[in-house]
Amino acid sequence: MRLATLRTPDGTQAVRVAGDGNRALPLPYRDVGELLASGPDWRAEAAAATGRPLELDPSYLAPVVPAPAKFVAVGFNFTSHTDDRTPGQAYPSLFTKFARSLVGARDDIELPLPEESVQVDWEVELAVVIGRPGRRIPAARAREHIAGYTVTNDLSVRDWQFRTRQALAGKAWEHMTPLGPWLVSADEAPDAAGMRLRCEVDGVLRQDASTAEMIFSAEEVVAYLSTIVMLEPGDVISLGTPAGAAIGQDPPPWLTAGAVVRSSVEGIGELVNRCAAAPAPAPATAFAATVGGCA
Amino acid sequence: MRLATLRTPDGTQAVRVAGDGNRALPLPYRDVGELLASGPDWRAEAAAATGRPLELDPSYLAPVVPAPAKFVAVGFNFTSHTDDRTPGQAYPSLFTKFARSLVGARDDIELPLPEESVQVDWEVELAVVIGRPGRRIPAARAREHIAGYTVTNDLSVRDWQFRTRQALAGKAWEHMTPLGPWLVSADEAPDAAGMRLRCEVDGVLRQDASTAEMIFSAEEVVAYLSTIVMLEPGDVISLGTPAGAAIGQDPPPWLTAGAVVRSSVEGIGELVNRCAAAPAPAPATAFAATVGGCA
Repeated sequence: MRLATLRTPDGTQAVRVAGDGNRALPLPYRDVGELLASGPDWRAEAAAATGRPLELDPSYLAPVVPAPAKFVAVGFNFTSHTDDRTPGQAYPSLFTKFARSLVGARDDIELPLPEESVQVDWEVELAVVIGRPGRRIPAARAREHIAGYTVTNDLSVRDWQFRTRQALAGKAWEHMTPLGPWLVSADEAPDAAGMRLRCEVDGVLRQDASTAEMIFSAEEVVAYLSTIVMLEPGDVISLGTPAGAAIGQDPPPWLTAGAVVRSSVEGIGELVNRCAAAPAPAPATAFAATVGGCA
Repeated sequence: MRLATLRTPDGTQAVRVAGDGNRALPLPYRDVGELLASGPDWRAEAAAATGRPLELDPSYLAPVVPAPAKFVAVGFNFTSHTDDRTPGQAYPSLFTKFARSLVGARDDIELPLPEESVQVDWEVELAVVIGRPGRRIPAARAREHIAGYTVTNDLSVRDWQFRTRQALAGKAWEHMTPLGPWLVSADEAPDAAGMRLRCEVDGVLRQDASTAEMIFSAEEVVAYLSTIVMLEPGDVISLGTPAGAAIGQDPPPWLTAGAVVRSSVEGIGELVNRCAAAPAPAPATAFAATVGGCA
């Protein structure tokens, strides 16, 4: 089952995705986060949605969870992306993004003003979305708390990221992090330990790796983070990126206005985002004027 | 004007605080964050609230903003708390906490399980609460975006904080960060550049400093963070702690169950929080059964 959040004239609307990803069945929730928070029956309720599927124009895709209570990302979680800045770690390195950092699967990535930074970089990642609340979840039971998987790109403003030890200032920029196109429920997703991640920039394949390279598995990260704080439905945990980011190249081919970033996880989905000089144009908001959201 | 969020049987309730801080006038919002997000008239609306003030038992105080879209803290922002781990910084060091990290002004601080960590430390801080949205706010105009000031204590689990370069794992623990007791509106607050911060643990004065020691002012931090991301009403920015934390002592007098932490900012308010072995007892939730929240 695939679940998405679509922009409507009144706000957003959760849908179950049908067909080749071009049809959608509306669900009575404003977004996928609200659906997951509705309780343990979200899966059955979404599966039972019937009616005539509507057209799903990918430009209506909002971030699959538009306002997660937590968006946590794991830094340097692939053996190939660990370099001399990060000696082998015994623990996951965790940082966050804000709801306002997110954009949809076809939205523009909003670049900083040129005088703020030109060092904008890509990082395709697999993300898990929490479906069941839990604290101190043992890794062996973490799967029970994972609703499913989605794709993100941890766009990073490198000079800001390394201004201090805390990565946040380079990671949480407004409208820079695509999240989507949809959540693939865990029961239909490939094995999270062997998914293929790819990032293409303007047609050039820049990242191509398997989640088998991850240092900490999805289950281990869920266990670790849930020791610190209760995980809640709709929380997003992004699992790190493999080698191939611009920063590892000389000179780094930083992203510039007009560049198109394709980020994909095989079996989950693909993001296609164009880099736009700030301020970016407003995204399309025209899904299903006939449906009416429940905003 | 002082604004607080109180727990009620149905949720929470925003109030204007009256008298010596022991009376409250209910406002038609669930919490101070929702009041601030209601638009530019929040100040006039809160000031105009009338009626018979109800009793404000401090045990009903919820975090002044219970679910800020952003809780950002500045690390090492006092000259006295900058040590050899942090060479003089040209930029503010920023990390975050989650809504679930927060507790009210009289709630228990929930310690980690003993086998998780015993290195729990205090850090009294002055925090600003955003009242007006803004992006790329010049420091000279930052005051227009600050609704007011409140008190927090950036409780920190030191071994987890330093496991990786990212502080989050030591900073964002569930129910460890008191925020309150109320917001003092900017027009009635002392000059933020000269407030006195104090932290007492079990009657021993551990921190005692002036915000005049801050490296980055409230206005400078607002300007910096708003370059990265739009600030929104209810966002909380905590401005860093002075010398005197346990970690700077040998051996460090870590917090243990039963310890009482008093955190105050002169002219703003005081937090009094007892450390409790996890799981902490549920906080009091009995304000104004007669009023009814608007949850």
